[in-house]
Amino acid sequence: MHRTRIRVVADALDANETIARANRADFDRAGVAVVNLMSAPGAGKTTLLERVLPGLPRRVGVLEGDVQGSYDADRLAIRHIPVTQLNTSNGFGGECHLDANMVRSALPALPLADLDLLVVENVGNLVCPAEFRIGEDARAMVCSVTEGEDKPLKYPLMFRACELVVINKVDLLPHLEIDLDHLLYNVTAVNPGARTLLVSARTGEGVEAFAEWLAEVRPGVGADAGVPA
Amino acid sequence: MHRTRIRVVADALDANETIARANRADFDRAGVAVVNLMSAPGAGKTTLLERVLPGLPRRVGVLEGDVQGSYDADRLAIRHIPVTQLNTSNGFGGECHLDANMVRSALPALPLADLDLLVVENVGNLVCPAEFRIGEDARAMVCSVTEGEDKPLKYPLMFRACELVVINKVDLLPHLEIDLDHLLYNVTAVNPGARTLLVSARTGEGVEAFAEWLAEVRPGVGADAGVPA
Repeated sequence: MHRTRIRVVADALDANETIARANRADFDRAGVAVVNLMSAPGAGKTTLLERVLPGLPRRVGVLEGDVQGSYDADRLAIRHIPVTQLNTSNGFGGECHLDANMVRSALPALPLADLDLLVVENVGNLVCPAEFRIGEDARAMVCSVTEGEDKPLKYPLMFRACELVVINKVDLLPHLEIDLDHLLYNVTAVNPGARTLLVSARTGEGVEAFAEWLAEVRPGVGADAGVPA
Repeated sequence: MHRTRIRVVADALDANETIARANRADFDRAGVAVVNLMSAPGAGKTTLLERVLPGLPRRVGVLEGDVQGSYDADRLAIRHIPVTQLNTSNGFGGECHLDANMVRSALPALPLADLDLLVVENVGNLVCPAEFRIGEDARAMVCSVTEGEDKPLKYPLMFRACELVVINKVDLLPHLEIDLDHLLYNVTAVNPGARTLLVSARTGEGVEAFAEWLAEVRPGVGADAGVPA
C-alpha cells in the first residue's frame, strides 16, 4: 500500500519571520551589517550613538524608529550621520515596536549602497521589540543602571534576545542604591551567553568597547553568523 | 413617504471600552476608586507605592501587572498591602500592557468589599498602556528625570492620557544634565491640563502630595468624574 508522505512546514504562518529573512537577504546582498538596538525609554540609545558613530571606521547609517516625531533623528543628523526616520504611528496605528514589514517599507529610503553598517534604533520598549526579528545580524540592548537590578527578571525575553547588553549611566552609580553585581548576576541568570559592557554615554567611559563591537558586526547568512565573539 | 431613521451606533466595535465600562460599573457598585498607574520600566512606580500606601487613610489594594513574575507584588506584600498579581504572559501571549478584559479576569481575585481604593500598577511601557481604558477613575503616570526632557514629545499619547504626571527621582537632579523646566514645559505642551508633582520616592521628598491625591480619587460615573481637582 502506498502511503503519502506528509511534509511538515514549520513557521509557515510567521509572516514576520518570512519578511525578516527577505530583509536580511537584501542587506546581505548590499554587504550591509545590521544591528537592532533596543531599550526602555530614556536608557540612552541615542546619546550612545551620538558618542560612538561619528568616529566609527565604517560607513554607518541609522534607521530611527519612533511612535512619532524625529527628535532622535534630528540629534544624529546634525552630527552628519545619515539617518532615516520610521514612524510607527503613520499607517501602523501607534505600534510600540518595529517589525520586519515596517523595516521593509523603509528599505527604499535607505542608502544601502553607501553603507557598511546600519543601526536600527527601535522604539523605546522592553517588551514587544524583542518579539520581532527585522532582518538584523545582531541584537543589542541598552539598560540604564537607574532602572534597577530587577529588569532582566521582569523582561527576560528582551535580555535573552540580545547578544550584547550595554549597561549605561554608570557615572550615576555613586548616587544610586543599585547593586551593580546584582544587576549583572540577573543578566547572566536569564541569558548566560550575553556579553555585557559597562559604559557612560554621557562621560564617554567604556564606550570604545561598544564602538569596537559595532565595528565587528558582519553581514552573513544564518542566525547570529555576524555577531562578534 | 415614510423614511426610516437610522440610528448611528458609535464605538460599537470597541470591545475594550465595553468591558472597561463593565469593570467601572462593578468598581462603582463596590464603592472602590480605581487608579491606573503607568510609566516606563524602572521609573519607580513600586517604590512610590511602597512609600505612600502604608500610611494612606484608606483601605487600599494593588493589582500588579507584569509580563511575568511577581517581584513588585512581593515587595508590596511584605509591607502588608493586599496585592493581586496579573501576568500578561499567561494566556495573553506576553502583552506589553493591561487591557479591560485582563483586569476583568482578575476581578474575582480582588477583595473589593475590603477596599476603598485600588491602584492598578500597569506594565512598564510608555506606548500601549495609554491606549486601553481598564475601568479606572483616574490615570496617573510616573516619569523619571533620568529619562530626559523629551519623553512627553516622544510618547504624547501617554502624557495626554494622564490627569497626573509624577516627576520622580528629583534627588538625582544635581547629578544630571536634564533641564527640569524644559521637561515640565514639554509635559504642559502635550497636556495643558495635567497636574505635575515633583517627588523622590527614595528620599520621600514631595510624596505627601501624591498620597493626598490618592486619598481624594473617588469612584463615580462619567469620564474623569472621580479625579481630584
